[in-house]
Amino acid sequence: MNEVPLGFKFSGISCGIKEKGEKDLGLIYAWEPCLAAGFFTQNKLKAHPVLIDIKRIKNGKAQAILVNSGCANALNGKEGREDALEISRRLSSLLGVEEKQILLASTGVIGKRLPKDKILEALPLLVEKLSPYNLEDFAQSILTTDTFVKVFSLTTPIPGRGKKMVRITGIAKGAGMISPQLATMLVFLLTDACIKEEALKEALREAVDNSFHNLLVDGDMSTNDSVFILASGLARNPRIKPDSENYPLFLSSLTQVCQELAKMIARDGEGSTKLIEIRVKGAWDRKDARRIARAIARSPLVKTAIYGEDPNWGRILAAVGSARAKFKPERLELSIQGITIFKNLSPLPVGKELKEKLKDKEIIIEVNLYHGPHSLTFWSCDLTEEYVRINAHYHT
Amino acid sequence: MNEVPLGFKFSGISCGIKEKGEKDLGLIYAWEPCLAAGFFTQNKLKAHPVLIDIKRIKNGKAQAILVNSGCANALNGKEGREDALEISRRLSSLLGVEEKQILLASTGVIGKRLPKDKILEALPLLVEKLSPYNLEDFAQSILTTDTFVKVFSLTTPIPGRGKKMVRITGIAKGAGMISPQLATMLVFLLTDACIKEEALKEALREAVDNSFHNLLVDGDMSTNDSVFILASGLARNPRIKPDSENYPLFLSSLTQVCQELAKMIARDGEGSTKLIEIRVKGAWDRKDARRIARAIARSPLVKTAIYGEDPNWGRILAAVGSARAKFKPERLELSIQGITIFKNLSPLPVGKELKEKLKDKEIIIEVNLYHGPHSLTFWSCDLTEEYVRINAHYHT
Repeated sequence: MNEVPLGFKFSGISCGIKEKGEKDLGLIYAWEPCLAAGFFTQNKLKAHPVLIDIKRIKNGKAQAILVNSGCANALNGKEGREDALEISRRLSSLLGVEEKQILLASTGVIGKRLPKDKILEALPLLVEKLSPYNLEDFAQSILTTDTFVKVFSLTTPIPGRGKKMVRITGIAKGAGMISPQLATMLVFLLTDACIKEEALKEALREAVDNSFHNLLVDGDMSTNDSVFILASGLARNPRIKPDSENYPLFLSSLTQVCQELAKMIARDGEGSTKLIEIRVKGAWDRKDARRIARAIARSPLVKTAIYGEDPNWGRILAAVGSARAKFKPERLELSIQGITIFKNLSPLPVGKELKEKLKDKEIIIEVNLYHGPHSLTFWSCDLTEEYVRINAHYHT
Repeated sequence: MNEVPLGFKFSGISCGIKEKGEKDLGLIYAWEPCLAAGFFTQNKLKAHPVLIDIKRIKNGKAQAILVNSGCANALNGKEGREDALEISRRLSSLLGVEEKQILLASTGVIGKRLPKDKILEALPLLVEKLSPYNLEDFAQSILTTDTFVKVFSLTTPIPGRGKKMVRITGIAKGAGMISPQLATMLVFLLTDACIKEEALKEALREAVDNSFHNLLVDGDMSTNDSVFILASGLARNPRIKPDSENYPLFLSSLTQVCQELAKMIARDGEGSTKLIEIRVKGAWDRKDARRIARAIARSPLVKTAIYGEDPNWGRILAAVGSARAKFKPERLELSIQGITIFKNLSPLPVGKELKEKLKDKEIIIEVNLYHGPHSLTFWSCDLTEEYVRINAHYHT
């Protein structure tokens, strides 16, 4: 069991946003202001908490993150913004933390007002329950149609004076619908590493680029997607700088946490039965690799074939060919579950072994373009009747 | 009932590619060489018939189009190319038509060889059955999982000397899977209009840009998509030139035929229950309008909401916001079935009327950006459990 980073407390309770009494309000609180960085949805129509965070995170410090599930607080007029600000003001006085050091996240139905009074009423209890041992409560409070809690923790020794241990914990909610309304991904990364601001930002950028940017459940982009990182510095390790020896180690640990969470989100995609890992190799550049991976990951035909355990490689190649990427068809090579299926523009004879291997819960598709030095791994899931059922038949 | 353009014969038979004895081999034959133009899939991995056509159509003339369903003749090695060439050679000698004036189209399973001998054997009967009255047979022979034949004909008077009637007929197969393997769209446009080559090409380009380019069933791009037009000139109308007065009239008729076929294809999308028409208005340019329309059309969340008759407008706006298009959120206006749902960044109160109107078989989504002069109409369909069933559970 890995420990939680030093310097953080958690809490998660039910305040009545969700109808069935599930936890729906969560708080992360740091003993002292932390270095903070974040990435937010590229959607042009952003939820109020995202718009507020984008401003606040510019000061590079944060001490608390308040999250609610069950309501996205998005596209509901300027009242939604005022609700968020009033709640954050109240929390600020309860915690004795400057408002600008409080970050906000919401996930749920678009277009509805937050039940502000319920939240305001619940804040004292939420604060009272803060404890380093309530991580599980917090992780539950941010879930929507997720079927399991998504937490991954890791401890890594940082070389240098004293060889201190640094802890990184990630908590995520998946691209399951809310209510169900819209796939939102929320990720909270916490570490006690002592690290310079530029190093933290750059590590987050790189780690996200190698994990959540390579993740696709249904291709829809939420108004609320957010990734946060807070670093308390309490591990008292030699400070990590962008050019210091210990930076690559921190980066690789952070990347691992992000990738594990990304895989959990893909595995828990709505209605999904299989995790699909797509490895694109030999691409001209990283963009091309991602375009090809994304085309495969997004294709409903590929997703349904994997669901049906059907070795229908023509659909994968058609997706590859549809991507705007440079490659020479005659060099292209495709394998599924380690079995080469197509090369030299011809299919290879494939026996029953492939069909057998498609019964696995994790399917690996590998495309090698032999056209350049760039590789990329991407995660997705299959498409099932259950996905349609969840998203068509639950009414708002 | 509209007449078929002068100068064409059709035939469609079963030669045994499909297992259940359905028609699977079709032929269009013109009395004399026609002006010809075509558009083909942008997929980097193109089927053999497409690669052959791209070369042949450069000479601007064609007299026959041979089509098979049940096998895509794609990604099956160089033997596939030789099969196609041998079949076209035999047809050439049977019809007494130069090889380079024969165009080819295939639709069906990727990666399999054509049953060449069956096709060669069937060619004499196929040629024997050619008749101006066998259009229906041809239209049937190109179908795969389509649930209805797609033909649309139109007659329009061309002003000028004698006010001649010009006929345009379009025959299409939809983005239903083959086998089911991959959505292929094949479109055959025939006209007896007398028209200059540049005018024909430009009219086809414009008509396709306003119809099939604005069509999305599942977002997958086939290796075999093709749109052909043949013009026999037998209407003996004053020749249509790019700058002549009668050009706009011909263009608008051709566009109408293409749009009707595009709507039929969307309506017959696999497993679909509703046609979705997306109208984007006030876009900065045409590209932006299409990006927004495409983002809505492609969104599984929007498609499942429409299927569930759920007035879940948040999903539509999230799709709009995810498109890489220029607009100002505060000007954005959304209406569904003529009812305005969202403006000034706020939802409007909407009664039960909307819910009632979502029961219609045709759903119109209108997005007005108030940001420029460009508009675009786009067609799509809903996403149902049946789509998943068709594409997951029929094994190859």
